[in-house]
Amino acid sequence: MPLFSAEKLREITTKIFEAAGAPHEHASKVAEHLVESNLVGHDSHGVVRILRYVNLIKEGKVKPAVIPEIILDKSIIAVIDGRWGFGVVAADMAMELAVEKAKKNNVGMVGLHNCNHIGRVGSYAQQAAREDMVGFVACNSSPGIVAPYGGIKRRLGANALALAIPTGEAHPFLMDFASSVVAEGKIRIKYHEHEKLPQGWIIDEEGKPSTNPLDFYGENDSLPGALLPFGGHKGYAIALAIDLLCGALVGGRCTTGLNQHIGNGVLMIAIDVESFTQLDAYTQQVQQTLSLLRSTPPAEGFERVMIPGEPEFSVREKRLKEGIVISEEIWNELKNTATGLGVEKLN
Amino acid sequence: MPLFSAEKLREITTKIFEAAGAPHEHASKVAEHLVESNLVGHDSHGVVRILRYVNLIKEGKVKPAVIPEIILDKSIIAVIDGRWGFGVVAADMAMELAVEKAKKNNVGMVGLHNCNHIGRVGSYAQQAAREDMVGFVACNSSPGIVAPYGGIKRRLGANALALAIPTGEAHPFLMDFASSVVAEGKIRIKYHEHEKLPQGWIIDEEGKPSTNPLDFYGENDSLPGALLPFGGHKGYAIALAIDLLCGALVGGRCTTGLNQHIGNGVLMIAIDVESFTQLDAYTQQVQQTLSLLRSTPPAEGFERVMIPGEPEFSVREKRLKEGIVISEEIWNELKNTATGLGVEKLN
Repeated sequence: MPLFSAEKLREITTKIFEAAGAPHEHASKVAEHLVESNLVGHDSHGVVRILRYVNLIKEGKVKPAVIPEIILDKSIIAVIDGRWGFGVVAADMAMELAVEKAKKNNVGMVGLHNCNHIGRVGSYAQQAAREDMVGFVACNSSPGIVAPYGGIKRRLGANALALAIPTGEAHPFLMDFASSVVAEGKIRIKYHEHEKLPQGWIIDEEGKPSTNPLDFYGENDSLPGALLPFGGHKGYAIALAIDLLCGALVGGRCTTGLNQHIGNGVLMIAIDVESFTQLDAYTQQVQQTLSLLRSTPPAEGFERVMIPGEPEFSVREKRLKEGIVISEEIWNELKNTATGLGVEKLN
Repeated sequence: MPLFSAEKLREITTKIFEAAGAPHEHASKVAEHLVESNLVGHDSHGVVRILRYVNLIKEGKVKPAVIPEIILDKSIIAVIDGRWGFGVVAADMAMELAVEKAKKNNVGMVGLHNCNHIGRVGSYAQQAAREDMVGFVACNSSPGIVAPYGGIKRRLGANALALAIPTGEAHPFLMDFASSVVAEGKIRIKYHEHEKLPQGWIIDEEGKPSTNPLDFYGENDSLPGALLPFGGHKGYAIALAIDLLCGALVGGRCTTGLNQHIGNGVLMIAIDVESFTQLDAYTQQVQQTLSLLRSTPPAEGFERVMIPGEPEFSVREKRLKEGIVISEEIWNELKNTATGLGVEKLN
């Protein structure tokens, strides 16, 4: 299967988005984000998205050249209107603004709406951690695919949460997950591979537990079943909280269930560590704590206890060295997409 | 069994704490908090705690008269040293300060350390919601009773999280839970009732799943087993994040596993809804969303889909009307405690 360096993959991706009408700065920012997702092993958020983004551009749903607009700007708080450009460009700008505010006033809190898919939420949390800040990102999405606890119909998006906490090590603590048991992409993979799902992922049309992906997608995409929130009523509470904060609070849209595309509503927070405490003392205590956790005897089937983010960072190191493998199918799709856009030479 | 009005129970509790050396203001604040926990159905955080608190006062571990001290005070951020007084008094003061800051500058963020048990974290989140603010509370605890994901020893507290979001209804959205599968108190109840635990709550000394409470407590309190975090790696990430934020960030202490009592480290955040958006538009969208959720057809075994906090608020209404039942055992314990402190007439 085709193997690429991250650099090469960024170059290719940038070229395609430029051909689709994006200015170089936007094209390269989106390329960087997608390839970074591949690097950390989240291939579902990587270059596999290019075709979808290009189609959205063609349909006029992603406006590749628009500049997001700051529509509210106070000392700590701001709100950005993404103006339906690239979600990644708007989200990057939102965290940059939150960090800038936190540098001046200890904390920055930025909401974002009218915003397309922002991708891997953890990357924006990391953006803050690189500046010795705690970075928090919550993101709601649509249409609804997750049933509330105790209910049987699709109501909430797989609303995502990320938190990065600086550690003084090479990498931050990085929590980054969907509030559903798993991301929808994992069901799709099982579906294509004709495999059963583990118990506890989905319910069927009548709310009964199911291991059949078809109970989730239905015949002809009739969408009868629903994903479950992770951790029962606790994950449901988190999913709904994200919806209210990223919808109603920051002036975006809350879920309307299956009915409507509302894009990503986003809330980002940056907290300057040094505004609370001295960085040295902080780092020392964080590292002691992480050492204590890492020293835990592992459970059966585990090699060791890891800190959130470690699995991703170790994949990243490997892929930086060994390159990123893209399936023949995706590579052909990229070449066709490029040709369709008049790109003469991709590789 | 003895039945009390909330008012009567507050009066009794206040009397006991005053006799134990607390000034009236502190005694009545702690009484209000404990009885409120009983009202919303969290009896494990209610008046059952009185004896424990009184014992801690006798041992000099809770200093009932000290005033918490604000040791860092910036426009958005503050840190309070609880000076090992009542945790409830310090936590109430912390959220009051966060709300005051948010009123002036849109957001308030207050850390708290050297702090005894703060009780039911949800109550402080509600304190913010009453002022039309989003209220967030995270609280770490010790000693460690929860194993990290993939590990088999007690490392983290059942670190708690609460979030209240104003709704414009009589009650806010209220999320309030431990990051362990269940609170430790629920294992203790099964233990005393010689019942088995459901699968997935605890592991034994060797990390194997167990349904025997004795595998958690051990003979002679040897504490061989551990609680599991809720939702696997996701709950573990939340538990560790709370530990780092409420320990290292706010200048408190992170977990040392089983070794040391570090009290509660706390981080509280208040966000003024009106600093982001107009309250009317916000409330309208929140209520639409809650209606959509409530309209979800219920799953088998559920009467209806509820909004986080609803189960508690409905118990509260019932108990306000019908009174709070206290077991003979607890009531006798309270009477003995009172007599031991020289209170002449309790009821």
